[in-house]
Amino acid sequence: MKIVFLGTSATFPTKDRNHTAILLRYSSEALLFDCGEATQKQLRISGESPMKITKIFISHWHGDHVLGIPGLLQSMAMNNRKEPLEIFGPEGSDQMFWKIYHAFQIKAPYNITVHEIKNLRSIKSVCVSGNYEVLAMKVQHSIPCIAYAFQERSKYRIKKDFVRKYNLQGNPLLKKLQQGKDIVYNKKKIRAKDVTFVNYGKKVTIILDALYEEKLAKIAENADLLICEGTFSNKMREKVKEKGHMTVKQAAKVARKAKVKQLVLTHFSQRYKNLNELAKEAKSVFRNTKLAKDFMVVNV
Amino acid sequence: MKIVFLGTSATFPTKDRNHTAILLRYSSEALLFDCGEATQKQLRISGESPMKITKIFISHWHGDHVLGIPGLLQSMAMNNRKEPLEIFGPEGSDQMFWKIYHAFQIKAPYNITVHEIKNLRSIKSVCVSGNYEVLAMKVQHSIPCIAYAFQERSKYRIKKDFVRKYNLQGNPLLKKLQQGKDIVYNKKKIRAKDVTFVNYGKKVTIILDALYEEKLAKIAENADLLICEGTFSNKMREKVKEKGHMTVKQAAKVARKAKVKQLVLTHFSQRYKNLNELAKEAKSVFRNTKLAKDFMVVNV
Repeated sequence: MKIVFLGTSATFPTKDRNHTAILLRYSSEALLFDCGEATQKQLRISGESPMKITKIFISHWHGDHVLGIPGLLQSMAMNNRKEPLEIFGPEGSDQMFWKIYHAFQIKAPYNITVHEIKNLRSIKSVCVSGNYEVLAMKVQHSIPCIAYAFQERSKYRIKKDFVRKYNLQGNPLLKKLQQGKDIVYNKKKIRAKDVTFVNYGKKVTIILDALYEEKLAKIAENADLLICEGTFSNKMREKVKEKGHMTVKQAAKVARKAKVKQLVLTHFSQRYKNLNELAKEAKSVFRNTKLAKDFMVVNV
Repeated sequence: MKIVFLGTSATFPTKDRNHTAILLRYSSEALLFDCGEATQKQLRISGESPMKITKIFISHWHGDHVLGIPGLLQSMAMNNRKEPLEIFGPEGSDQMFWKIYHAFQIKAPYNITVHEIKNLRSIKSVCVSGNYEVLAMKVQHSIPCIAYAFQERSKYRIKKDFVRKYNLQGNPLLKKLQQGKDIVYNKKKIRAKDVTFVNYGKKVTIILDALYEEKLAKIAENADLLICEGTFSNKMREKVKEKGHMTVKQAAKVARKAKVKQLVLTHFSQRYKNLNELAKEAKSVFRNTKLAKDFMVVNV
């Protein structure tokens, strides 16, 4: 799985940082998390094809997270895309999306489905696809806002010594075991759990624009990678609440509590020309922290 | 007067070329001609302040010319702009603009006026300000589309030897002569036209997205600078009509017929990685031709 940071700035773009967008490449698909203005150009620069995007997950409908949608959709249309596109977002997404679609007179020759994620009381699976699902959790911001987690399906692998011992290479019974089903072989019952081990699927959690709350750790639990907004330095800790954002230390607290493997911070306020201080603050709470840059790639 | 090319690509942005936007700095004002996606970021990179923009002139409402409007307006709002903003565009602009404004829930704390330019039969002055006016002319494209000309007011200057001869330095009568009015001095009538010369105002014409027609030369007549779309090479001359665009040779023909001082081509199709061929073709018709790049500055 490959993650490409297409934009890492907060409210205003800077010379080097575009508005938020994160591309997750998995198998032949690309999932886009948020789509700030000029995401189509960032894709161009990064060498990633917009045509591979099958699903767009919107955290919330503030301009810096969605203004790239009409341009991206128009370019897909002009490239004669035929593959359907799915859009996921919080309450109100259906109306917001279609208003924008019609205001810009986009005429897409491909099917667009908007999935509005409503009544989120806890963590919910909102999209189940071949080998993965995407989970959603409501977070606190000035408008309805959602954190997502991409969860790859875990797989049962068969222990090699078992296959060797019974000379079972290529035997169709192995498939049953891989599905977690017990089998009978040479009149002997073999339990799946005795001869298999679990290859846990990778998990990537993306929290963009949220107030700090302890429960954020739930959606990030044991993630291989947590991508989290860290808009401000700790010096702003008194003011982040009114701004609807987090300090990098708060983001690092989420990572620590959730026991994630790696934290990547993004969505930095334009006021920080140099992010060394932010990195230091975050690492004092959670050591394995990186600060995203535009076009940075993280492989999971 | 300073012209900054903020975007020089056609339908699709490339790695190096953004969607169309041209900034004209004059006195304390900035006028923006078209506003493709990510214009606010291009302004950031160029070091030009979006807060100086007083007027936006839209050629037409295709996405690659207007998708930067909501982001620019939102950023102006978040920077607490109070100065009014005027927007000029072809028939339908009023409805188009306000649809986009409401779709993106922009809440501008400054006044916005949309001037819809209708019933254009010939060249018409659509905006008269202190020392300049902007002229508009209808051009042929797939939707209503307008070419603009920025025309600085011409000034009467008084001949130095006349001032010296009559020792008139600082005399308020000079102002009358500067306004083209005759005066009486020491009982002698002095004609303005005898003691003044005209300092012709600068003219910059901007033609974006248009089919070639002979009459395009009218709005470009004697311009100090003609900025013109040159989407395609001459090899595409059979197809430009259906595409609603011009070849660089056609743009150069407009420049030659209009007797402009300088031609700058822009709005290049993404298919041209190297523009040498286009430069050669255009220069074979009009020698003083330049090909725009993003962030190129031309002083007039």
